[in-house]
Amino acid sequence: MLTMKNNLINKFLSSLQSDVPACTANAYRLLNHGKLSKTGYLVILPVDQGFEHGPEKSFSNNPLGYDPEYHVKLAIEAGLSAYAAPLGMIENIARDYAGMIPLILKINSNNMLKSSDTSPHQAITASVEDALRLGCIGIGLTIYPGSNKFDSSIREIREIIAQAKKFGLLVIIWSYPRGEGIRPNMNTALDISCYAVHIAALLGAHIIKIKIPDNINGLNNIIPNLDNISDRIEKIIQSAFVGKKMVLFSGGNSKNLDILYKEINAIKIGGGNGSMIGRNVFQRSYNEALEMLNGINNIYKEKNI
Amino acid sequence: MLTMKNNLINKFLSSLQSDVPACTANAYRLLNHGKLSKTGYLVILPVDQGFEHGPEKSFSNNPLGYDPEYHVKLAIEAGLSAYAAPLGMIENIARDYAGMIPLILKINSNNMLKSSDTSPHQAITASVEDALRLGCIGIGLTIYPGSNKFDSSIREIREIIAQAKKFGLLVIIWSYPRGEGIRPNMNTALDISCYAVHIAALLGAHIIKIKIPDNINGLNNIIPNLDNISDRIEKIIQSAFVGKKMVLFSGGNSKNLDILYKEINAIKIGGGNGSMIGRNVFQRSYNEALEMLNGINNIYKEKNI
Amino acid sequence: MLTMKNNLINKFLSSLQSDVPACTANAYRLLNHGKLSKTGYLVILPVDQGFEHGPEKSFSNNPLGYDPEYHVKLAIEAGLSAYAAPLGMIENIARDYAGMIPLILKINSNNMLKSSDTSPHQAITASVEDALRLGCIGIGLTIYPGSNKFDSSIREIREIIAQAKKFGLLVIIWSYPRGEGIRPNMNTALDISCYAVHIAALLGAHIIKIKIPDNINGLNNIIPNLDNISDRIEKIIQSAFVGKKMVLFSGGNSKNLDILYKEINAIKIGGGNGSMIGRNVFQRSYNEALEMLNGINNIYKEKNI
Amino acid sequence: MLTMKNNLINKFLSSLQSDVPACTANAYRLLNHGKLSKTGYLVILPVDQGFEHGPEKSFSNNPLGYDPEYHVKLAIEAGLSAYAAPLGMIENIARDYAGMIPLILKINSNNMLKSSDTSPHQAITASVEDALRLGCIGIGLTIYPGSNKFDSSIREIREIIAQAKKFGLLVIIWSYPRGEGIRPNMNTALDISCYAVHIAALLGAHIIKIKIPDNINGLNNIIPNLDNISDRIEKIIQSAFVGKKMVLFSGGNSKNLDILYKEINAIKIGGGNGSMIGRNVFQRSYNEALEMLNGINNIYKEKNI
Amino acid sequence: MLTMKNNLINKFLSSLQSDVPACTANAYRLLNHGKLSKTGYLVILPVDQGFEHGPEKSFSNNPLGYDPEYHVKLAIEAGLSAYAAPLGMIENIARDYAGMIPLILKINSNNMLKSSDTSPHQAITASVEDALRLGCIGIGLTIYPGSNKFDSSIREIREIIAQAKKFGLLVIIWSYPRGEGIRPNMNTALDISCYAVHIAALLGAHIIKIKIPDNINGLNNIIPNLDNISDRIEKIIQSAFVGKKMVLFSGGNSKNLDILYKEINAIKIGGGNGSMIGRNVFQRSYNEALEMLNGINNIYKEKNI
Repeated sequence: MLTMKNNLINKFLSSLQSDVPACTANAYRLLNHGKLSKTGYLVILPVDQGFEHGPEKSFSNNPLGYDPEYHVKLAIEAGLSAYAAPLGMIENIARDYAGMIPLILKINSNNMLKSSDTSPHQAITASVEDALRLGCIGIGLTIYPGSNKFDSSIREIREIIAQAKKFGLLVIIWSYPRGEGIRPNMNTALDISCYAVHIAALLGAHIIKIKIPDNINGLNNIIPNLDNISDRIEKIIQSAFVGKKMVLFSGGNSKNLDILYKEINAIKIGGGNGSMIGRNVFQRSYNEALEMLNGINNIYKEKNI
Repeated sequence: MLTMKNNLINKFLSSLQSDVPACTANAYRLLNHGKLSKTGYLVILPVDQGFEHGPEKSFSNNPLGYDPEYHVKLAIEAGLSAYAAPLGMIENIARDYAGMIPLILKINSNNMLKSSDTSPHQAITASVEDALRLGCIGIGLTIYPGSNKFDSSIREIREIIAQAKKFGLLVIIWSYPRGEGIRPNMNTALDISCYAVHIAALLGAHIIKIKIPDNINGLNNIIPNLDNISDRIEKIIQSAFVGKKMVLFSGGNSKNLDILYKEINAIKIGGGNGSMIGRNVFQRSYNEALEMLNGINNIYKEKNI
Repeated sequence: MLTMKNNLINKFLSSLQSDVPACTANAYRLLNHGKLSKTGYLVILPVDQGFEHGPEKSFSNNPLGYDPEYHVKLAIEAGLSAYAAPLGMIENIARDYAGMIPLILKINSNNMLKSSDTSPHQAITASVEDALRLGCIGIGLTIYPGSNKFDSSIREIREIIAQAKKFGLLVIIWSYPRGEGIRPNMNTALDISCYAVHIAALLGAHIIKIKIPDNINGLNNIIPNLDNISDRIEKIIQSAFVGKKMVLFSGGNSKNLDILYKEINAIKIGGGNGSMIGRNVFQRSYNEALEMLNGINNIYKEKNI
Repeated sequence: MLTMKNNLINKFLSSLQSDVPACTANAYRLLNHGKLSKTGYLVILPVDQGFEHGPEKSFSNNPLGYDPEYHVKLAIEAGLSAYAAPLGMIENIARDYAGMIPLILKINSNNMLKSSDTSPHQAITASVEDALRLGCIGIGLTIYPGSNKFDSSIREIREIIAQAKKFGLLVIIWSYPRGEGIRPNMNTALDISCYAVHIAALLGAHIIKIKIPDNINGLNNIIPNLDNISDRIEKIIQSAFVGKKMVLFSGGNSKNLDILYKEINAIKIGGGNGSMIGRNVFQRSYNEALEMLNGINNIYKEKNI
Repeated sequence: MLTMKNNLINKFLSSLQSDVPACTANAYRLLNHGKLSKTGYLVILPVDQGFEHGPEKSFSNNPLGYDPEYHVKLAIEAGLSAYAAPLGMIENIARDYAGMIPLILKINSNNMLKSSDTSPHQAITASVEDALRLGCIGIGLTIYPGSNKFDSSIREIREIIAQAKKFGLLVIIWSYPRGEGIRPNMNTALDISCYAVHIAALLGAHIIKIKIPDNINGLNNIIPNLDNISDRIEKIIQSAFVGKKMVLFSGGNSKNLDILYKEINAIKIGGGNGSMIGRNVFQRSYNEALEMLNGINNIYKEKNI
């Protein structure tokens, strides 16, 4: 084999053994791109907040963000691993930026206009065929374990996952516990997060995005006290088929850079595969964002652990 | 390139970059038709009120409107950009008036016979195949962001949008916030309107129809006080991928011509792409409607801004 | 052109302009059959009451009606325009009576065994493919405008209508306002009946069956007092694309022949296209039914208006 | 014609007139098999109770019944007309017993593990393709007229029936009134049973299985007092297209042989076409079952009426 | 049964027993049309010579024939049973003449532009779907038994025949022995004609067109000397499943009316079902053609034999 592989990459590739070769090809397109090329780490820019929280809340801080072109340009210049967005955003840049960065089509989306008493659910907004015609290397899907609509949601996305795998598209699942089955303030409890990652793995995701878990338990099965973030990350990775599935962590709300870099470091120490950071990027100025992403990439790339 | 393009047209064409060439061809068929040909502005006559409000409420003021032939004739004589209507209306004139004006098939419809406590929703009443066999240049779809049925509605129309794009049909989304998620009297709040336009853009619409927004906010994220209609229009256009998607504004209920022309002027100043006017047209006499549409076309065509 | 056409026929044929030629051929098969051949009027025997009301309520008055062969024989001998029934009824006679009378396959059916609090809805019980293999000239479908299941019902039948049109099958819609959205005793209100006819026309029906409307209004939009049945019929015809769609009226419950003939006369004066009469036929003896149908045919055929 | 036909057989064959010849061929395979060959009567062994009531309740009385082979052997030795069972049961014997007895694949099944407040409904558990690959002569389907899920159930099985008819498979419908629309203790009311049989006939069933009706009415339309079982059977047969569809009666719960034989006799006198007997068979010992089935066959075959 | 059937019709209907009921319906549409309605005889006008021999050779004698409308008008006015032509010809008249005469779509065609040493073969020029959308009652296909391309030709048309039968379209085969396997001047030899008719019957044709056979044998198996045309016709009918398939005879080249009428008479005496006459019709003036067709119809209809 010509490609040098490290342990992270090898474990991930082993989990693609039942997929078509095109899936491995897409995995390499992702793993060999940007500043983290061939490291087994990924930093991905997702811009789906316009759908999720509305354009004003998402972009009014930095109005350049209203233009779909802004984000993909930034992702390329920052040397990120991939850029993920809903249909309209990808369609608007897919030809002009074709081949410059791996694209991930976000296939379902939530919105804040619903009445607050509805069960959490994301509407399907694009298809595997869309991802193929737009030249994407994968699709993104959000699930809400704990929602009363989770069963019907599984039925919807099961068919999409199956179709994506026919064509070798990578499947990235955003797994966010939420809904009637989750007690208040327990959405990021460690045991629930482990369960959420495991369900995504069982559903056939290749890559799983999750929030950094808190040191609490939301179910009966008690996980011992884990003060360090990196220990909790390690616990999460274990639930993802002992690291054979890639796990990325979200950047969450805007925060202090020192705290952010500390979290990134903990993700790396705990065996995580990287970050998906959206709001923290596009709600800063272009140059501040570049600087921050440079800092994150450097942690994943250089720092010894 | 042989076609002279202005800035409005160029921005719109850039947003078709991921569609098949047939889509650009249909865009030119629309942009190069009628009195506003090659201006980048559109005035479209939609007649879907028979389904939405019933024939009596729609046509009894001007009983000639019961005949499907009446409307397409008027649209042609007025030099409008296109005519949009549900299946039965288009089927009844598609052969006799073939080639005389761009046709848009309205693919879903609401009706007033439902009990008032149901979530807002439009039933699918026609298909992409219907639009193709009838020679239409695009399809029209209404969405109700804020309805508890919005998610399942998105699932329904997403497939239709995807199929339309295979064949290069233009996709026009009527985006009307309505339902359990919208607080009373907030259907036309500015921030909600921005959100509604943005969602339509993200769903892949090429052209978006929306009501003229009011100077109020219906969500937590506050947009500053914007007294002038044109400033609010500008805010809407920003949410439509900074004007790369075309945005048309509905004419609403019958009103005074001076107020109407003032609104049209504000749409133009704010960067809007034109109007879809239905009831205001067919609830006047034929000659009064022609005169009014002439006035509107003249504003979009001639007035300096 | 060799065939003499009257105004009723011409208007109807104009509404087939977007259909395949096979549809016009099936229209002629229907319009040129039986005693009303070439008049533009139709009298059709529908026998779907076995499904709708059960066999006892339907046939115990005249037990010969339990046999599917009884009805088609009667329809042929009476010189009716067509015979309409559900799958099992048509399958049982389609070969033996092939070519003797135009057949219409009723594609959906309701039943009285449901609990009374369910929204009115008809289950799909047959397909376009069934209609084709059985040699039918068209399909029949019931819709319940006003039902909370109306939207999903439209979605179901829209696909069937589209497929029927590929093969030129005529589409006959039974449009019966019913359900949560209709106030008590308003199922046959004139304005609601107009709305129901208009919706069927917009859905692409070629022929619409409706009940004779009453001189009341069930919505806000008031139609002036119309004492004469024929004036109300005229209002209905106006809502059916000013008579371009054919409208047939149901015969309703058994009644006095004088009243019935008076209604038939009013249908003719008001511009209606004929009658669909079921129970009134098969709940009389064979000879009484023949006599009554003869009387009806004569009114449509001979009487000056 | 070479085959001797009696009146029962002729009536049944007339109802196959719109089906493909393969269907008539399968009818003869069924009608010409076993001890009742060429009589127009059928006795069929159905063993679907393992799915419906669980294995313990079904087979613990006679533990040999846990083995799928037990039942088909018994059916063959008893000279029955056919053997009907769900997928797993048929798959387990289809090769070893190929050609020895007509097989009917039960295509849907209920189970007792659901919460008790759900509407009665059977899940689809096998396909027409399964029936064909396993060499069956027909498929069996249960419907629950009266259930609030009846409409959607019809939609599911309609497609299966249509596909079965393409390949000439016989369609046997188990029609069991049950659910929200049926008043307590009225599942076997005579008028409801007539309705249930009639609906199955209208859905295109070739053979209908129903329980022996009781001398009560569950709907408004009163059938006169009918003390004799045979008179009630006759009423049922009338609703089955005056006997053109075959009607089989279930054996119900275990009971005294004298009562059972008396019922079989009444079925024959009333014009019924035979019996489907399951629990009454496999909850006796092998030899007792053989003896009982011999008694039943003899009544259908020999006894004068 | 209500329709009087004669022996010719009964034999033909018996050969439709394995087809769907729609096929019997189309048979009645054909058998019950025109001056020979209900006689069991058919006279059909085929106009495929423009493709076969070029427009000049076909239409220059009577230039009105260049217009597709000319032929269908003539066929209708002459009261013929049906009109048969290739795609373009039927498309040009299908809507305007819908329902006025049964249409047969000729699905393959030969042409004279090939080099003369190619094996006789007809190119597929239309589809079953075309026949359905155009409202035809059947399709026509030419085969050339004896051609070295006959095997591949069978493979092509077999699929078309199968699809036509799904929808109940009648299949009319023009069976013309021709090619490398037929010795010179033996194309119309009696034994070869019998063989050609039999092959068409075996391929599933419902109606077979053939030339009037000559009193010669072209194969080893000797048929005794048959001086009378009617005896040779009888021999042909015997090979067409003893008359259960309908056999029509071509009118051949223009000739003397006395000779033609004599041949028609012989066809009738020999048990043939009628004629397909093309060139003999449209190479005369309109009035002469009407007169000739009247004469032919009269022989089939009235003359005692």
